[in-house]
Amino acid sequence: MRPPLRNDRLLRALLREPVDMTPVWLMRQAGRYLPEYRAVRERAGSFLALCTTPELACEVTLQPVRRFPLDAAILFSDILTIPDAMGLGLEFDDQGPHFREPLRSVESIRRLAVPDPEQALRYVLDTVRLVRRELDGRIPLIGFSGSPWTLATYMVEGSGSRDYRLIKGLCFAEPLAARHLLDILAQSVTAYLNAQIAAGAQAVMLFDTWGGILTERGYHEYSLDPMRSVLAGLTRSAEGRKVPVIVFTKGGSAWLEAQADLGSDAISLDWTVSLATARARIGDRVALQGNLDPAFLTAPTDRMCTEIKALLADYGTGSGHVFNLGHGVTPDVDPEQVAILVDTVHHLSAPYHR
Amino acid sequence: MRPPLRNDRLLRALLREPVDMTPVWLMRQAGRYLPEYRAVRERAGSFLALCTTPELACEVTLQPVRRFPLDAAILFSDILTIPDAMGLGLEFDDQGPHFREPLRSVESIRRLAVPDPEQALRYVLDTVRLVRRELDGRIPLIGFSGSPWTLATYMVEGSGSRDYRLIKGLCFAEPLAARHLLDILAQSVTAYLNAQIAAGAQAVMLFDTWGGILTERGYHEYSLDPMRSVLAGLTRSAEGRKVPVIVFTKGGSAWLEAQADLGSDAISLDWTVSLATARARIGDRVALQGNLDPAFLTAPTDRMCTEIKALLADYGTGSGHVFNLGHGVTPDVDPEQVAILVDTVHHLSAPYHR
Repeated sequence: MRPPLRNDRLLRALLREPVDMTPVWLMRQAGRYLPEYRAVRERAGSFLALCTTPELACEVTLQPVRRFPLDAAILFSDILTIPDAMGLGLEFDDQGPHFREPLRSVESIRRLAVPDPEQALRYVLDTVRLVRRELDGRIPLIGFSGSPWTLATYMVEGSGSRDYRLIKGLCFAEPLAARHLLDILAQSVTAYLNAQIAAGAQAVMLFDTWGGILTERGYHEYSLDPMRSVLAGLTRSAEGRKVPVIVFTKGGSAWLEAQADLGSDAISLDWTVSLATARARIGDRVALQGNLDPAFLTAPTDRMCTEIKALLADYGTGSGHVFNLGHGVTPDVDPEQVAILVDTVHHLSAPYHR
Repeated sequence: MRPPLRNDRLLRALLREPVDMTPVWLMRQAGRYLPEYRAVRERAGSFLALCTTPELACEVTLQPVRRFPLDAAILFSDILTIPDAMGLGLEFDDQGPHFREPLRSVESIRRLAVPDPEQALRYVLDTVRLVRRELDGRIPLIGFSGSPWTLATYMVEGSGSRDYRLIKGLCFAEPLAARHLLDILAQSVTAYLNAQIAAGAQAVMLFDTWGGILTERGYHEYSLDPMRSVLAGLTRSAEGRKVPVIVFTKGGSAWLEAQADLGSDAISLDWTVSLATARARIGDRVALQGNLDPAFLTAPTDRMCTEIKALLADYGTGSGHVFNLGHGVTPDVDPEQVAILVDTVHHLSAPYHR
C-alpha cells in the first residue's frame, strides 16, 4: 500500500477541481541550472548513464522538489528512450541527441517492433518506482513520453534538424511507410505510458516538440491523429484516482481548438499565446498549463514577478491552471529565481481561488 | 515617364480587386537554387558585394522573372542593410549574417541615428531604379525591409540566436533603451521604404522574421506597435496607383487578428495556418499571401501539385490571395519544380476567379 497523496493540487487543477492556490512545476526543473544536478551528472559520466541508472535518475528527479515547494515531480528521463529501445542507438554529443542508426529506408521502418517497456525500458519504470517510494506521498509524480510525430522526426532525421527535410520527404514520398511508422510509435507510446502509470506515475504528459513544424493539415494527420490513438489507449485511473493527461505541442498555438478536442485533460502552452486568449478560444474544455517565457527567469526579479502577476491575471479566477514555463528552464538560470517564482505563484494565486 | 504596368495581378490581389487568376511570387525566388544566381554570386566575390553592386543585384532580381512567368519581382537585398548603414558593420560567414559591432550597451543605442537612405543606402535605391527600367512595365517590383523588432533583434544579438536572451534581456532590464531603439528603427524603416517607393517600388513588404519569438504581450509592444508607426508614415500611392503594403510575421499565426488590424493591405502567412482558417478568422479585412511549406518544392511533383490544389481550395473564391511560400525557397530545389508550381497556380486558380 502506498501512502495517501498529501499535496494533490496538481491533479485537482488538471481536472479543473477547486484548489487553494495554483499548482506550479517547471519543465526541465531537474537540470543543469542546479549545482547538485551537475555534480550527479559528472558522477554518472554521461547524460545517457544518468538516464539509465535508476538511482541517479531518481536522485536528480528529487533534487528540485527538495529545494523548492513545487507541486509535482517529473520523471527525469529523455524523450528518445523509445527509439533507443527499438535499436536505433541513442547517443548525445555537444549538438544534442542523435541516433547511430537513423531510419533511412522504408525497409528499416518495416522492421520496427513495439518494445516491451518492462524489458527494454525497465530502467525508466524502476526509476518511477524508486521516485514514488522516495516521494512518500508528498507530491505527485508526472511521467512522460515524446509524441509519435516527435519520435518519428528524430528517428528519421537522426538528430535535430534545420528544415526537417527528411521526415517531410518521407511523408510526401512514402505516405504508407510514414503512416506505419506513426502507428508503431503510437502503440509504443501507449504501452510505455501505461507501464509508467502501472509503475506509479500519477499524471502523464505527451511532449509534441516538433508538431509546430507542420502545416495545419499535416498537424492533423501526422501529429494529432497518432496522439488521439495514444489517448484512446491510456489507462486513465490508478490507485483509485484519475490519471490526468497533458498534451504539449511546442509551436502549436494556432491549433489550440484542435488540441482541446483531442481527449486530454489539459493542454500545455508555449509562451506565444496568452492564457487569456487561450481561455477565450477554448473555454473550460480542458485545463491549461503554462506559460511563462523561460527568459523571464533571467530577467530582474521584479520584472519576472510583474510578468507572473500578469500571467495569473490572464488566466483569472477558478481552477484549471497549472503554472509552468512555455519551455524548459535554461542552464543559465539562478536557482534563487526559481525559488522566488514558486513562492510568487503560490502567494499571488491564492486570491483567484477564494 | 515610366511605361504602364502590363501585369498588375499582384497589385490588384493585394487590394482585393478582381483578377483573372491568382498571382504568384516566391520568397527568395532569386537565390542559390538557380545556377545563374550562383554564377553571379561567384563573380561578385561575396554576398555583400552582390547586394551592394546595383548592376549585380538588378541582374539576380531579374533572373527568376526571366525563367518563370512570376507576377512580381522582389528587390534582391538583405534585411540587415539598415543596421549596416547605421555603422554596425554587416558581415556574412557560413553561419549567416553577423555584425562586427553589435549593440551591447545602452550608450551604443543612444548614439544611433536614422540613416539618410539616399546617402548610406543609395545602392539599394539605385538597384530599385535599375530593376524598374529593366522590367519595363512587365510586372511590378516589390521593395522590402526588416521590421523594427527583427532589426533590433539582430543588432543586439549580433547574429542569429538560439534563445534571444540578449534582446529579451534588454527589453526586461532596460525598457527605455529598448523603446528608443525600436523608435529609431521605426523611423529608419519608414524613411527607407518611402525612399524605395520614390525610387520605383510598387508594393512593399515588412519582414518580421523574429516576431514569433515573443510572448503575446511582447509581440504587441515590441513588434506590432513599431510596425504600426511605420505603416502610419508610409507613402501609400505613387505613379497614380496605390502602393500596397504586406506584413509578414514568421511564427505569428496565433496573432492573425492583431496583424489584420495593423493597417496593412495584406498579411503574409507561414505554413502553420491554413488559408481557410486564416480567412475564417479575419474575414476579408486584408488580403492573404502564402503559404505553401517550401518543403513541398522537394516533394514528388504530383504531391506538390495536390498540395497547391488544396491550398487554392482553402482560400476559395474571390480575389485577395497572393500565392507564395510560407518561407523562402531553399537551395536544394530543382528550378523545374518552381516552373511547374507557377504554371499550376495560374492554371488551377482561374476557375476561382470567374
